[in-house]
Amino acid sequence: MSAGPADFEQALAETAAAVDATLDALLPRADGVEGRVAEAMRYATLNGGKRLRPFLVVAGAQLFEVSEPSARRTAAAVEMIHCYSLVHDDLPAMDDDDVRRGRPSCHVAFDEATAILAGDALLTYAFEALSAPETHASAAVRCELVRGLAVAAGCGGMVGGQMIDLLAAESTLDIDGVTRLQKLKTGALIAFACEAGAILGEAGAEARAALAGYGHDLGLAFQIADDLLDIEGSEAETGKAVGKDAAAGKATFVGLLGVDGARDRARVLVDRAVGRLARFGDKADSLRAVARFAIARRH
Amino acid sequence: MSAGPADFEQALAETAAAVDATLDALLPRADGVEGRVAEAMRYATLNGGKRLRPFLVVAGAQLFEVSEPSARRTAAAVEMIHCYSLVHDDLPAMDDDDVRRGRPSCHVAFDEATAILAGDALLTYAFEALSAPETHASAAVRCELVRGLAVAAGCGGMVGGQMIDLLAAESTLDIDGVTRLQKLKTGALIAFACEAGAILGEAGAEARAALAGYGHDLGLAFQIADDLLDIEGSEAETGKAVGKDAAAGKATFVGLLGVDGARDRARVLVDRAVGRLARFGDKADSLRAVARFAIARRH
Repeated sequence: MSAGPADFEQALAETAAAVDATLDALLPRADGVEGRVAEAMRYATLNGGKRLRPFLVVAGAQLFEVSEPSARRTAAAVEMIHCYSLVHDDLPAMDDDDVRRGRPSCHVAFDEATAILAGDALLTYAFEALSAPETHASAAVRCELVRGLAVAAGCGGMVGGQMIDLLAAESTLDIDGVTRLQKLKTGALIAFACEAGAILGEAGAEARAALAGYGHDLGLAFQIADDLLDIEGSEAETGKAVGKDAAAGKATFVGLLGVDGARDRARVLVDRAVGRLARFGDKADSLRAVARFAIARRH
Repeated sequence: MSAGPADFEQALAETAAAVDATLDALLPRADGVEGRVAEAMRYATLNGGKRLRPFLVVAGAQLFEVSEPSARRTAAAVEMIHCYSLVHDDLPAMDDDDVRRGRPSCHVAFDEATAILAGDALLTYAFEALSAPETHASAAVRCELVRGLAVAAGCGGMVGGQMIDLLAAESTLDIDGVTRLQKLKTGALIAFACEAGAILGEAGAEARAALAGYGHDLGLAFQIADDLLDIEGSEAETGKAVGKDAAAGKATFVGLLGVDGARDRARVLVDRAVGRLARFGDKADSLRAVARFAIARRH
């Protein structure tokens, strides 16, 4: 299959639409007095995100001929975790961001208490969805998904990374420190998204490790590209405030390596990520296209 | 086995010590820059709570001769969920409580951002712990535990109840409304704690339903007792601010039924809860003692 940039953008949009439909079907609908929290969960999730992580789950699952419903449910669970983290990160006590994906952040559109609860409920619901028999016939597979997602999202992964990030204005991170921060904050969930297809397909340890390694390299490349966009992008293009990290005096890849150095580093990472896919042949062309997209995108 | 009040208090203390040891062993230790979040997780969990929910898990598990390590891990996971909910409920944007179990609340001892993250990490970690093979040899059982806990904790359970509670100052709840609020906010997790032993023991649907029903009755009785303590207790006895709900103009059982009416209702619920245990014979004496404790306690 050929996978030029236009093909890739179309494949990304198609997967986003499919996963959006799954999210829409899975997420609770506002009902009763407590309906406000369901409304906020839907607001924070069904918002036109590009669904990169779901795409990685679906593209990984295709390598092992996993059924589409299984892949989509798993993709939706990963996206719920991503969306909950954005809701909590945007809170005034955290990064204090009023804009997300070009719309008011959840706590602006609702209120802080509802945003905290909607984040909690999305996080919880991801595990509810994954553990249900509809996700996979094998309970062992479902347990591995639950565990892998929890490890990626928890204090040794995404939450730990966010903690470092909040403390980073006070500490002075060097390049190893920033790399570790991003490995936890964004890399762990992206790596799980890449590995999830192999878990669903009950693939061997080597295939799983190759995909997790691809995910870690890809995640870092994406983060470096984000740092570059934070310097070079416009708010209209990225849908969020730009220049914030630099203004907050946070250590970033661009700050530590310079624009050219950061761009070079991202290229090396993308090459390494693509290199890890060799064993999967043509089937992994979608994943190769994601890696190229990571450093070519403008938003 | 006899189970007078003194025996029960001792059994509760012994189970609390055992589950505390399990929590201490399970919870991550502060390490690296992100260690602050692990510190806050431990602060919010290892705090001398009476461990009612863990006791229910362990007492339920004893009915089905579940191994102690299985029961304790599950009990610890349930307590993590309870503790995360207290951390988030205490936040300024939620109930704004500075004192918890006689100590500064998590966001006072640390800061708001750390408290939000510690809550998120505890919630996530509960599912990580449950899904691990150490919890039970059967992956199907582990999946059922994950799912049951997620349903009890999520937007159709605890989080939904907290949403109603936050809106309750604005709406005017009648007795059915308050009952539903408490069924979600505290009842769902207590009912899961009661049912968890039956899940671990792979018991039949009737035994599970009996225990869940017992848990729902018990949860409501506990909540009514809490409302009574909120009016009658002292801060020194309860370890938290008293009279808050009444001052906030929230609808409570006591406000709607009067002190005597509320006390009668609690007694009826406890009798019904105990009635559901008939099928389990003497083995359920611990659970009977919990029910009596619910309305006799002063803290």
